[in-house]
Order: sequence, then structure tokens, then C-alpha cells
Amino acid sequence: MKVDGIPYRSIWLNENGWAVDIIDQTRLPHEFMVKSLGSMQDAAEAISVMRVRGAPLIGATAAYGLALAMREDSSDENLVNAAETLLATRPTAVNLRWALARMQQVLTTVPGEQRVAMAYALAAKICDEDVAINHAIGRHALDVIRNLWQQKPTGSETFHILTHCNAGWLATVDWGTALSVIYQAFDDGIPVHVWVDETRPRNQGAALTAWELKSHGIPHDVIVDNAGGHLMQHGLVDVCITGTDRTARNGDVCNKIGTYLKALAACDNEVPFYVALPGPTIDWQMTDGVNGIPIEQRDAEEVTHVAGKNSEGRVDSVQITPDGVSACNYAFDVTPARLVTGLFTERGVCKASEEGLLGLYPEEME
Amino acid sequence: MKVDGIPYRSIWLNENGWAVDIIDQTRLPHEFMVKSLGSMQDAAEAISVMRVRGAPLIGATAAYGLALAMREDSSDENLVNAAETLLATRPTAVNLRWALARMQQVLTTVPGEQRVAMAYALAAKICDEDVAINHAIGRHALDVIRNLWQQKPTGSETFHILTHCNAGWLATVDWGTALSVIYQAFDDGIPVHVWVDETRPRNQGAALTAWELKSHGIPHDVIVDNAGGHLMQHGLVDVCITGTDRTARNGDVCNKIGTYLKALAACDNEVPFYVALPGPTIDWQMTDGVNGIPIEQRDAEEVTHVAGKNSEGRVDSVQITPDGVSACNYAFDVTPARLVTGLFTERGVCKASEEGLLGLYPEEME
Repeated sequence: MKVDGIPYRSIWLNENGWAVDIIDQTRLPHEFMVKSLGSMQDAAEAISVMRVRGAPLIGATAAYGLALAMREDSSDENLVNAAETLLATRPTAVNLRWALARMQQVLTTVPGEQRVAMAYALAAKICDEDVAINHAIGRHALDVIRNLWQQKPTGSETFHILTHCNAGWLATVDWGTALSVIYQAFDDGIPVHVWVDETRPRNQGAALTAWELKSHGIPHDVIVDNAGGHLMQHGLVDVCITGTDRTARNGDVCNKIGTYLKALAACDNEVPFYVALPGPTIDWQMTDGVNGIPIEQRDAEEVTHVAGKNSEGRVDSVQITPDGVSACNYAFDVTPARLVTGLFTERGVCKASEEGLLGLYPEEME
Repeated sequence: MKVDGIPYRSIWLNENGWAVDIIDQTRLPHEFMVKSLGSMQDAAEAISVMRVRGAPLIGATAAYGLALAMREDSSDENLVNAAETLLATRPTAVNLRWALARMQQVLTTVPGEQRVAMAYALAAKICDEDVAINHAIGRHALDVIRNLWQQKPTGSETFHILTHCNAGWLATVDWGTALSVIYQAFDDGIPVHVWVDETRPRNQGAALTAWELKSHGIPHDVIVDNAGGHLMQHGLVDVCITGTDRTARNGDVCNKIGTYLKALAACDNEVPFYVALPGPTIDWQMTDGVNGIPIEQRDAEEVTHVAGKNSEGRVDSVQITPDGVSACNYAFDVTPARLVTGLFTERGVCKASEEGLLGLYPEEME
């Protein structure tokens, strides 16, 4: 998407034809800095210190990391070692494992001298596929959004979308998932205004979603996570759209903590609540999301401390609680399917139910 | 309540018999500092810069401010001038106006030489009445809480209460409203654990409620405002108790933004949701809270910036959004009566409805 009028992806080949450029996301939202990755070690470091984050982008970066490794030494031994090093950067990331396995599977079948070209081509393909999936999510959703906009009373000037966390292009190679819908609605001429939940504790909404929307020129307001209920109660939200980290077979969606509260408010006020996702994040083995998906607890310091730019312009962190206070930090929650109006996928829009999902992904029928 | 084992009120007469001591709440939660108010100007300053906050405490401080003024000059002219100065510190505070009017009404009827003693006596009475009201709220509620605790399965070790914002003794002279219930349940031997919503944007939960509970020795965990839904969904909340700034005749309650979202989650998971309030905050003219109560919008900087103690131990503020981002800041929301299990008042517990309220306050029948 655009940054001050110039189209970007979150990862791309440097004009020298072999280095890989990324946006250093640890500097956002306070500074926009492009960083060149010149080696496999650079790629591993970028993933582990979260210069790149978001499952699809991590996978894409690892794929290019393997290409950089092949450029240095295309032996079988280095292929195995590089893949191990890259995998160890974020051991629980499913896309990382998937991208590396896919690269290895192909590269082991070709002789060493062809591996560099093959690795770059496949990494580019992985990126392009992600872009195509995310674009398709937004394209299918656009019909729903256009319809909701056309249902508003004549004379309405704004179409208000509320989103939670960052399901934007920075977490993918381009477009994002929930934000893909918003970008395409905006580009289609719908007068979009976005309510951006700040998304405590890590404030990905206030930092990243706000930065994306501002950079692309989409009108928006950052709000505290507490505000959405009031806005919906007073007719100030036309639709909610969020992403999801994991979708259960029954349509329950696991997303950033607080998503469930917004879905409750949407239901109470008859505001449509949609969730955008790429098919590969559906967990077909998980039949009951609410009771089955384990919820990670993270460091309490994410609750007791808040990071931002201080009065001197430097990034610092402030403690908002008394010294030594106890805090508890669940990272995700599960929104039951009954509160979800529908799912936006790369294959189309469906009900949040097993039947709905199988209608789009019939190959998953048992 | 107690601070490290020593009982405190939020305002009290200095041992010299005429100055008035307060806890400087602008220093909390990072520093506990008592400040002596030696003049009416000191009292006015303490209110206007929010060294004291919370409607009942503001009223009490203004009452003592008038006593300090009488000590300096007990003339009719000074009585009028001092009352005007004190009223101007927080022009929209209803309790402030009420306390000053009550003081003036009595003081104008007695000759100048008796005014000092009378003013101190009446200020002390205003404080004691507030303490008695708040204590009674908790005492009546205790039956409900004890009952809920006894209904838990045998072998339960903890009774989990979730609260939002700060309805504690720091906002009143002692006990608080919602927290009065918690203090009395704890002192009664119920094994209370409190989930403390941080309460963005101003973090009164993370700062003040956490400080109160820690100081009194009540087990608690600070959580982000996003977390309560997940906790309720998984049986980790036994009851929600909040305060309210304004209660409508129909039982709708206006409280800090985000209260409505917690009430929705409580309803969805069959968790009792109670609201604690002193009778004087009921607005008998307001027949429909959701549609009738205007909601104040405050400075966007409360959303874009967060204050706390920085890495060098000083209080600072950090910007969490990109430069120049737009933000929107509604301060309160209204929870419809249908989501409120009951109201805790100084006269007893009632349904959140006109019928329920009139049962306790029959003098308000038309």
C-alpha cells in the first residue's frame, strides 16, 4: 500500500537484484526506515528482533533468508544449517515452518548451481501468492461493504468501520486481511472512516494500524479499547472488521484480546461483525474454538509498562502501575461463531460455521 | 482504609487542630505524600490541580476550605468571596456546589465570631456523613457477596471480583463505593481476589485502584481493559462491581467509558453485574439514561499519550501514536439497566429499575 503517495510492499528485492529490503517495523510508528538484508544472518536477526512481524511476512522473510544463504554457499549442508537457523528465530510461527519446508523441498531436488536462482524465484512466488490471497479477501468482501454503504440513508456522508489490532499490510506482504477490505473500499470510492482500537497491551492499533491508514490517506480516529461499545450504541459504527490468528472448524475465531468484547457490542446493537482470514489459518482439527483453543499468557510487563516516544523525542517506556503490582496478561480471546456475521476469505464470503467454511473449502470434508 | 497497616482517610484535620491534611493524589501511585492545606487558597489549589479528586472528596475539601477562610476572616464578604473562589475551581462538580451551599446556608445564620468553630464542625460532619454512606453501601452489599461466595462449589479457594476505574476511598472520604463492598468482603474473611481494569485512557484502575488494594493488602491483578471478556468466558470472574457517576431514574448507569462492554460480557456469561452508588447521585429527572445522558468528549491527548514513571524514575508521558494522528475520546458510557443485576445503595440493594429505586427512595415518587 502507499506511504505518502508511494506504493510499497513490506518486503521486496533491492534494486541491486540480490539484497532484500524491509521496513524496520521496530521504528514504527515514529520513524519510517528501510533496512537492507544482505545475508541470511541479517534475515534471521530481522525476524528474531521483530523488525518484521505477522505470520505471512515472517514466512516471506525466511524464504528470502534461505535465498541469501544459497547465494553464499549452495551446498546441501548449508541449506540444512540455514533452514535450522531461520526456524529457530521464532520457533512457534507456523508460517515460518511452512515457508522453509516448501523452499527446502524444492531446493533439494535441484543441483547446487541452480539453487540460487530457484530460491529467489520461489521466495518471490511465496510473496506474490500472499499478495494475491490478501487482495482476493478484500475483493470478495467489497461486495458486502458496498451493499452496507448503499443501505445507509440517502445523504449519509461517511461509512464508519471499526477495527481491532493490526491486520494490515505490515503483517503480510501487502494489503493485509481486515485492512485489505478497508483499502479496497476506500479505493472504490466509499467514504470510509476507521475507528482504530488502540489495542492494549501492545498498542498495535494505535501504532501500526494508525500509521498504515495515515500513510495511505484514509480518514481515521484512534480510540481507547473501551470506546467501541458507546460508539455502536449511538449508531457511529456501520461495520466491524477484524483479523483472526486461528479459526476453528465451527467458525469460532481466536484473535487479539478484546475482540470478543467488540463482537458482543456489535451483536447488542445489530452492527455487522465480520472477520477476515486466509484459508491456511483455519484449524480444521479444532471443532470448538471457545473451549479448545489454549490462550497464551505473556509477560506482565506488557500491562504495567507502555512504550512510546517521550517528551524528548526518544522511544522510552513508562510504568503506569504502583511498584511491585501484580498483573495478568492473556494475549488472545475467542469470539464464538454466533457473534460473527460472516467470514471474508480468499475464496469468498461465508457464514461463521462448519457448513459455511466447508462450502468454500470442500476438500476439507471428512 | 489502610496504607501499609495504618488507617487513613483521604482528608483529615491536622494534629495542630486547624490545618487540613490530604494525600496528594497527583503523586500516586508512584509516591505517597501527605500535604497540609494551611489556607483557603491551598484548598482551592488542591481541588483545581486535582491533588484531590472524586465528587465527595472535592465537596469535603471545599467545606474545609471555607473553614480555613473563616479562620482568616469571618466576615460576610469573605464568606461570599471564598465560596466563589472555591466554586470556580471545578465549576461542573455537583458535590462542590452542594457542599459550599450547605456551609454558606448555616454560616450566614450565625454571628462572625462563631463561624470558625461552626465551619470546622460542619466540614467534619460532611466528611463523617460521606463515610457513613459509603460504609452502608458496602454493608448492605456484603449479604449479596457472601451469598455468591457461599454458592461457589465446596473447595473453591478464591472469590474473583472484577472492577473498572476507581470507585475507591481515594475518590471519597473513606471506603469508596464499589471498593467499599470489596473492603468489607475482604475484612469479613471472604478470600477476595480483584481483577483491576487498567481503565484507559487515564488509567485510574492501574494507578489508583491497584494502589488502594495493594496498600490495604487485598490480592489483585491489573489487567488491560480488553481482558475481562475472556476471563468471564472461562469462569474466572464471580461478580463485577463498578461505581457510577450518574444513575438514571430507569436504572441506566453512566460510568467510565468501557463499563458497558464489561456488562455485556457479564450478561453473556451469566456473571452478576452490580453497580454501587450513593443515593444523591441518582438523577430522578433523567428517565432514559442511554438516550438522555450527554457524554463528554475530552482532550485527544489522553488517548495519544500515556503518563507513568519513566526508566529514570521520573513521571513522564509517552506518545503511542504516529505524529499528528487524529484521536477521539469519549469519557463515559451508559450501561442499560437490563444488563445490571442490581444496585448497591446506602439504603439497601435494589433492582436497576424505577420500581427498584423508588422502593428505597419513596420520597421521590411523583
